[in-house]
Amino acid sequence: MNQLLLKKQLISFLNEDIGSGDLSCQALFEDQQILGKGQFYSKQDGLFVGEQIIQETYALFNEKIDIHLFKKDGEITRKGEVIAEVTGPYHVLLKAERVLLNIIQRLSGIATITNKTVQQLANQQIKITDTRKTTPGLRMLEKYAVRCGGGINHRFGLYDAIMLKDNHIAAMGSISEAVHKVRQKAGHMVKVEVEIRNEIQLKEPIESEVDCIMFDNMSPTKVKEMIHFVPKHIVTEASGNITLENIADFRESGVDMISLGFLTHSATALDISFNIMEEMK
Amino acid sequence: MNQLLLKKQLISFLNEDIGSGDLSCQALFEDQQILGKGQFYSKQDGLFVGEQIIQETYALFNEKIDIHLFKKDGEITRKGEVIAEVTGPYHVLLKAERVLLNIIQRLSGIATITNKTVQQLANQQIKITDTRKTTPGLRMLEKYAVRCGGGINHRFGLYDAIMLKDNHIAAMGSISEAVHKVRQKAGHMVKVEVEIRNEIQLKEPIESEVDCIMFDNMSPTKVKEMIHFVPKHIVTEASGNITLENIADFRESGVDMISLGFLTHSATALDISFNIMEEMK
Amino acid sequence: MNQLLLKKQLISFLNEDIGSGDLSCQALFEDQQILGKGQFYSKQDGLFVGEQIIQETYALFNEKIDIHLFKKDGEITRKGEVIAEVTGPYHVLLKAERVLLNIIQRLSGIATITNKTVQQLANQQIKITDTRKTTPGLRMLEKYAVRCGGGINHRFGLYDAIMLKDNHIAAMGSISEAVHKVRQKAGHMVKVEVEIRNEIQLKEPIESEVDCIMFDNMSPTKVKEMIHFVPKHIVTEASGNITLENIADFRESGVDMISLGFLTHSATALDISFNIMEEMK
Amino acid sequence: MNQLLLKKQLISFLNEDIGSGDLSCQALFEDQQILGKGQFYSKQDGLFVGEQIIQETYALFNEKIDIHLFKKDGEITRKGEVIAEVTGPYHVLLKAERVLLNIIQRLSGIATITNKTVQQLANQQIKITDTRKTTPGLRMLEKYAVRCGGGINHRFGLYDAIMLKDNHIAAMGSISEAVHKVRQKAGHMVKVEVEIRNEIQLKEPIESEVDCIMFDNMSPTKVKEMIHFVPKHIVTEASGNITLENIADFRESGVDMISLGFLTHSATALDISFNIMEEMK
Amino acid sequence: MNQLLLKKQLISFLNEDIGSGDLSCQALFEDQQILGKGQFYSKQDGLFVGEQIIQETYALFNEKIDIHLFKKDGEITRKGEVIAEVTGPYHVLLKAERVLLNIIQRLSGIATITNKTVQQLANQQIKITDTRKTTPGLRMLEKYAVRCGGGINHRFGLYDAIMLKDNHIAAMGSISEAVHKVRQKAGHMVKVEVEIRNEIQLKEPIESEVDCIMFDNMSPTKVKEMIHFVPKHIVTEASGNITLENIADFRESGVDMISLGFLTHSATALDISFNIMEEMK
Amino acid sequence: MNQLLLKKQLISFLNEDIGSGDLSCQALFEDQQILGKGQFYSKQDGLFVGEQIIQETYALFNEKIDIHLFKKDGEITRKGEVIAEVTGPYHVLLKAERVLLNIIQRLSGIATITNKTVQQLANQQIKITDTRKTTPGLRMLEKYAVRCGGGINHRFGLYDAIMLKDNHIAAMGSISEAVHKVRQKAGHMVKVEVEIRNEIQLKEPIESEVDCIMFDNMSPTKVKEMIHFVPKHIVTEASGNITLENIADFRESGVDMISLGFLTHSATALDISFNIMEEMK
Repeated sequence: MNQLLLKKQLISFLNEDIGSGDLSCQALFEDQQILGKGQFYSKQDGLFVGEQIIQETYALFNEKIDIHLFKKDGEITRKGEVIAEVTGPYHVLLKAERVLLNIIQRLSGIATITNKTVQQLANQQIKITDTRKTTPGLRMLEKYAVRCGGGINHRFGLYDAIMLKDNHIAAMGSISEAVHKVRQKAGHMVKVEVEIRNEIQLKEPIESEVDCIMFDNMSPTKVKEMIHFVPKHIVTEASGNITLENIADFRESGVDMISLGFLTHSATALDISFNIMEEMK
Repeated sequence: MNQLLLKKQLISFLNEDIGSGDLSCQALFEDQQILGKGQFYSKQDGLFVGEQIIQETYALFNEKIDIHLFKKDGEITRKGEVIAEVTGPYHVLLKAERVLLNIIQRLSGIATITNKTVQQLANQQIKITDTRKTTPGLRMLEKYAVRCGGGINHRFGLYDAIMLKDNHIAAMGSISEAVHKVRQKAGHMVKVEVEIRNEIQLKEPIESEVDCIMFDNMSPTKVKEMIHFVPKHIVTEASGNITLENIADFRESGVDMISLGFLTHSATALDISFNIMEEMK
Repeated sequence: MNQLLLKKQLISFLNEDIGSGDLSCQALFEDQQILGKGQFYSKQDGLFVGEQIIQETYALFNEKIDIHLFKKDGEITRKGEVIAEVTGPYHVLLKAERVLLNIIQRLSGIATITNKTVQQLANQQIKITDTRKTTPGLRMLEKYAVRCGGGINHRFGLYDAIMLKDNHIAAMGSISEAVHKVRQKAGHMVKVEVEIRNEIQLKEPIESEVDCIMFDNMSPTKVKEMIHFVPKHIVTEASGNITLENIADFRESGVDMISLGFLTHSATALDISFNIMEEMK
Repeated sequence: MNQLLLKKQLISFLNEDIGSGDLSCQALFEDQQILGKGQFYSKQDGLFVGEQIIQETYALFNEKIDIHLFKKDGEITRKGEVIAEVTGPYHVLLKAERVLLNIIQRLSGIATITNKTVQQLANQQIKITDTRKTTPGLRMLEKYAVRCGGGINHRFGLYDAIMLKDNHIAAMGSISEAVHKVRQKAGHMVKVEVEIRNEIQLKEPIESEVDCIMFDNMSPTKVKEMIHFVPKHIVTEASGNITLENIADFRESGVDMISLGFLTHSATALDISFNIMEEMK
Repeated sequence: MNQLLLKKQLISFLNEDIGSGDLSCQALFEDQQILGKGQFYSKQDGLFVGEQIIQETYALFNEKIDIHLFKKDGEITRKGEVIAEVTGPYHVLLKAERVLLNIIQRLSGIATITNKTVQQLANQQIKITDTRKTTPGLRMLEKYAVRCGGGINHRFGLYDAIMLKDNHIAAMGSISEAVHKVRQKAGHMVKVEVEIRNEIQLKEPIESEVDCIMFDNMSPTKVKEMIHFVPKHIVTEASGNITLENIADFRESGVDMISLGFLTHSATALDISFNIMEEMK
Repeated sequence: MNQLLLKKQLISFLNEDIGSGDLSCQALFEDQQILGKGQFYSKQDGLFVGEQIIQETYALFNEKIDIHLFKKDGEITRKGEVIAEVTGPYHVLLKAERVLLNIIQRLSGIATITNKTVQQLANQQIKITDTRKTTPGLRMLEKYAVRCGGGINHRFGLYDAIMLKDNHIAAMGSISEAVHKVRQKAGHMVKVEVEIRNEIQLKEPIESEVDCIMFDNMSPTKVKEMIHFVPKHIVTEASGNITLENIADFRESGVDMISLGFLTHSATALDISFNIMEEMK
C-alpha cells in the first residue's frame, strides 16, 4: 500500500464521522483528560486485516497512544481472541472506534471470503483474483485485503493494463483489429487481455498473441475444452457467474486465474468489536 | 444529498479508476470520435438508486451526452428492465461504466435490503433505521439509499446527535451523571440517546429525561416489557442481533425504531449491467 | 473541536499569509538560525480563546518550539497579562505571528462579547446561543468561542437540525403541513424548530408537537405572553433585534434561549499582541 | 480577484453549511420541484459588495437560475432598496441564502466602514489602506471590499513585499543592517518598508533608501514633523491607534497612507436580508 | 489523458500564477470589459502539443471564448505558423497566457526532441520510450507528449509494472530469487523487467522467464551480442548514456526499445508565442 | 520557501510516482524489513540544491531515517562527490529515490546554469534574474534554485507586481494612460514595470515615473544608449534573446538586471545518482 495515500484516506474517513466535532466527547471530556485501555477482539472466526490502519489512524491524533498488535494481516483470528490492545485518552479511543471498525471489519471480511474461496477451490495452480468491482474510494485497501486472503490482484484500474471487452471489439470491428491497434499505441510494459464469449472468438486472440484470454461466463467443461487450444505462454482467466458454491467445479479446468467480483462487491463484514476495558488514573 | 459534495466524491471515484489515463480507450479512440448508445439494465429484481449519480457523473465530462432515465430513485426495477439510456462518445461511456455500476449496484443493494426489511417487519409504526456502520467515504450516499428503501436515518456522525454508550457511562460513573453533563454543554437542538443493556439501567435515563433509549441486544419480549415503563415522549430503539430472519419477532414489541447495521455493512450489490447497444455514425 | 479539521484549516490560513514564501524572513534568516522568546499578552481585558490553536499551529513546523500557556480557554485575561510564552526559531515565530493573532483575537473577541451578554442578562435559566451568522470558513472555531464565553450552540448548519422559517412554511401552505412532512422524512435524532412571527401562528407548532418554537422579532412582553401557552417540554427561543443594550429586558421573559447573530457577525477583536522579548544564543 | 480561487472558496463555504445535506429542504422538496423568486435587499444604508459572489455561487448548482443585479460593487445601497432578484428552485435559494448573506454582509460592512473613513479623513492626497489583520481565509475577499470602499491595499501577505518591524531589526542589530541584507537578497520588484517608533530611528531608513517608512503609533503632530525630513520619493505611512474618531486629526499631517486594522478585524456586518417573494408555478 | 485530472492540474497551475489576483488586469480592466483576438504562433519549427490543454484551460473561466485550432497534437508547426486563434475578454487572454505557454512550450519541446530521436534512429522496429525521469507533477502530460512525438511510454510509475534494479536484486540475493518472489506476489497483468549490467547476469532473467530485459549502459555491439541469446518473446531494452548523437549506432543492434531520460528531464522548450492581434468593440 | 507548501507538493509528487503502491517493493519487502545505507552523489560538476527537500521528503514516511548532508544548497559539488548519506528501510529508500532525484537534478541544474550565467557576465553590478517561464507547479522551487545559483527573483506571479506589456498598453491607448490607471488602483507596496520595444517608447515611462523599465529584445549597444536617458532611481532590465553565449556583450551595458527565461524553461538536469551501498542487518 502507498502509506501517504492511506494517511490521506484515513483523515477523510475520520472527518466524515467526526465532522464539526464529537458532541458526546466534547461535552464529557473537554474539561478532564481520562485515559483508558481498549481492545479490538473478534466476535467471529476469520482473517484479520488492519495492522497498518490501526497504527496510522491513532498516529493522526497528536497524543501518546500505546498500541499492541496480537495479529498480523492475513492471520486467522478466532471468535473471542484479542486482536489489538490500545491505551490512550478516552476521547481519542472513542472518536476513532467506529471508523476503525468500519474499515477493519470490511477488509477482514474480504480477506476471509477470499481465503474461503481459495480453500474451496483447493488447487494452488489456479489463482483467485479480484476485479474492478470494488467499493468506490476503497480500491487500494480492498485489493490489499484480497492479497491478505491469499488472492492476487487483477489490474488496479483503467490505467495499468488493457482489457478489451465486447464493446471495444465491436467498435473496432474485430479482435485482431483492436489488439493490433492497442499493441501499436500502448507501452511494452502493458499487458493486453481479451474477453471472449464463445469458441469462435478463440482463434483471433491467440493469433494476435495477446497476454491473457478471459473466458466470460463459460462452464468449467467449456473452459477446459478451450484451454486445450491456448498456447501455454498465454494466461487464461475464467470469469462470470462463479460463486463460492460452484467454484470447486473449476478445480480441474486447467485455467490459470479465476476472477470474482463478489470478493469485494458483496463481502460480508467480519464481526469485530472494540471494548474499553478499564479507566486508568 | 449535498450535490456539491456528491460532485467532489464522484470526481475522486472516477480518478481512482482512470488514474493516469484509460489505456484501452486512449489506444483505440484517441484518433477517432465514435458515438454509442448504452443502457443500464437490471439483471435482478430490486430497488434502483442512482438518478442524480448518473446525471452528475456524465456532466463532469465536457461532452454532449443525452441521458434518459426510466426509473426514479427508490422505484422497483425488475430483471431485464432498462433503467437508463445514454448516448454519447464511446470513450466517456466506457470510462464511466465501472465506477457508475460500482456505486449504483451498492446503493440499489442497500435500498433493496432496506425495503425487504420493511416488508418483513410489516408494521408501519416501527421505523427501520441505519447506523454509523457505513462504508468509509460513502456515508452520505448510503444513508440516502436507506431513505430510498423506506428506512429513516439515525444520526449521521458524532457531530449531529449524542449517543451515550457504556464506555461513556462508565467513564462518568452513572447514566444520570453523563446525561446531566451533556445536557449542560450541548445545544438545545441536540438530541440525547442512551444505550442500555438491562432493566436495571432503565430508570436512570427516564428520570434524566433523555430523548431516546436504545435497548441493546434484547429479545422482543424483553423490549416489550421495558417499553411499558417508558413515557410516550421518549423514543425507543431496538438494536443488536436483529436480522432479516428474526425481525418479524419485533412486530408487536411496541418499539419506535429498529436500527440495523447490516443494511450498510453487509448489503449485497444489486446486479445491474451496462451494455452499449449500437454505434452511431 | 475536530482537531483533524482544525489542523487542515490552520495550514490553509498560514498558506494564505505565507504564500510563496516570507520574503522578509527568507532574506534575513535563511543563512543563520536565531532563536527567540516571544510572548502573547493582552492589551485589553477579556476572555482568552486559543490554547489548542497555538499548540497545533507551532506543531505544523518541524522545529523544536517550547510553549507555555498561562491561560485556559474561556479564562479572563487582564490588560498587560501574559497569555503564553513561546521559544523557538525566529523565522517560525515571525511567520506564525499574524495568523495566530488574527484567529485568537477574533475568537477571544467572540468569547468576550458572549460573556458580557451572559452577564448582562443575569439569568442562568435563559441560555445565550449563537446562530449560523458566522464567518464563512470559521464556524467550528467561532461556535467553540461562543461555548468558551458561556453560551451554547444552536445548530451547526443545515445538516444537523431542522428549522422551518417563513419561506419553508409558505411553500408548504401551513406550519402543520410543513412539520408533518419533515417528521415523516427526518430521522428520530433530528430536532424540529419552527419560527413564528405572531400569536396567530402559535397554535399550529404546539399542536404539531415541534421540539422548539422561535419567537422572531417580538418584544419581551409579547414573548412572555406567548410562553404562557407553550407546554413546558417545548423549548422556546427569542431572536431578532436583541442587543447587548436591551437584552436585560428579557430577563423575566421566561424564554429558554436567546439567539444572537452579533456574537459572531459583528464581534470586535480582542486586542492581543505578540512580542519577541529576547534573542537566545 | 482570482475567480478560480473564489469558486473554490465558495464551494468550501457552502459545504461548511450544507454538510451531509440540508435536512429541511430534503424533507420538504425532494419529491417536488418548486420555483421561487427571491430578493436581496438592504435593511441599512451602506456600500454593497457581492456581484461576482452572487453569480459564482448560484453557478455552482447545476440548475437554471436567473439573476438580476441592481447594484454594482462599491455602490451605495439605501435601507429598503433591492440589491438583486433571483429566480430558481426553492431548494437552491434556501441552501445558498445564509452563506451568501454571511459573505455579502461582511464584505459590504468592510466597504461601508472604509468609505466612512475616507469621508471622515476628507483628504484625497492621503490614501486609506488595509493591513494583514484580516479574517483567516478571507483575505482576498476582504481586501477586495476595502478597494470597493475607496481604500487601497497594503501588501497581501508575507510573500509580496517586505516590512521590517522591530523584531526583524532587533535580530539584525540595526535598520541599516536589515535593509542592506534584504536589498541584497530580495528581487528588484519587491518594495521594502521599515516601521519606526521614534525620531531617532528616522535617519537610518532614509539613508538606506527604503521605499516606505511607517510611523508606528505617533501623533499627527509628530508625524507631520517627521515627514518634513523624508525625501519625497519615499512613501510615508501612519499606523497604530488611529480610529474613525481621530482620523480627521491626520488630515493635514502630510502622510501618504494611513493603514487601519479595524477596517477588517472589527467591521460590523451590513444588514442585508433575503426574502422569497413568491412561488412560481 | 485523464481529463478530470488534467482539469485539476490546470486549475492548480493557473492559481500558482494568478495567486490572490492579477494586479495588472485588476487595475486596468475591472471597470471595463474589452474583447480581444489573440494568436498562438510558432517562433521555431517543431511538433505542437496542446489542443486539449488550450480548450480545457479557457473552459475554466466562465466566459464566452472562441477557440480555433489550426494544428493537431503531434503535427509539425513551422516558424511563423499560427497554431490557434482565440477570441474573448482581454483579462482572460492575459491571465491564461503565460501558464498556457509554459505548458505548451514544454510539451511541444518534448514531442519535438522525441521526434528528432525517432528520425535519427531511423529504424521503425526499435521503439523510443520515455522513463520515470519526468518533471514532478507533470508525468501524465509529459508522457502524452512523448506519444505525440512518436515514442511509446515505459511504465508510468512504481504502481503499474515491476522493474528489478540492482538494489532490489542485491537485497534478494539473486535475480532468480527476486523474480521468483515478485511472480508469486504480483498480479498476472503486471509485467516484470530486470535490469542487467553485464553478460554474466543474462542467464538468470532468461531462465526466470521475465517479460523484459534492460541492458544498462552497454555499447551497441555488446547489446547486439547479448540479444543473440534472448528468446524472441522477451522484450529487450537498451538504456543509459544514449544520446541524440550516438543513438544511430543502435540502429542495427536488434534491441526492441531504447529508453531515454533526456526526452523529459532535459528537453528544451519549443519557442511559441501568444500575441493579441486586435481589440474588438 | 514556504515549508508547509513544500510538504504538500512533495506528497503530491510522491503520490504521482507511487500511486496505488510500489509493486516491486510490495512484492519483495512486505514480509521482511531490510535496512540499507544509500548515497546521493554527483556524476557531474555543478551546484547542489536539495537540502530541505531531502529532509522533508523522508520525514513524510513514519520511519526512522538518518540523514547526513555533506553539501549545502548552492554549494559546488564535483563529479564523484557524495552529497548526502541516508540510512533507513530499503522500501522507503527505493520509493523516494526517483522523485527525489527528479527534483534535485532539476533544481541543481537550474542553480548550475544560473551560476554559469553569473560567471559569464562577470559584472556584479548587473543582477541575473528569472522570469515567469517556470515549470507549471514548480515555481517556488525553481525560483529558490535561481537564488541558490546567485540570481535574484523577478516577480513570482501576476499577484505581486505589475508588468505592463504591449498588450496592456495597446488596450489602454498609451503607456502614460496605463501607468496612470494602475498607480491609482494598485497598492503603494506594488512596483510597476513597463516593457518597451524602441526608443520612441522611452519617454513615457520615465515621465510616468515607473519603478522599472524593461528593454525588450534590444542589442547591448541600444540598451546602453537608452540607459543614458533613464534617471538613476528607475531600475532598468534587459530581456529577450539573451543567451549564455552572448550575455558577456551586456557586461558594459549599464543595465541593472538581465532576465533570462532559459534558466528555468530549458535548463538541463544536473546528473546526480542514488546508490544503496550496503544492507544493514
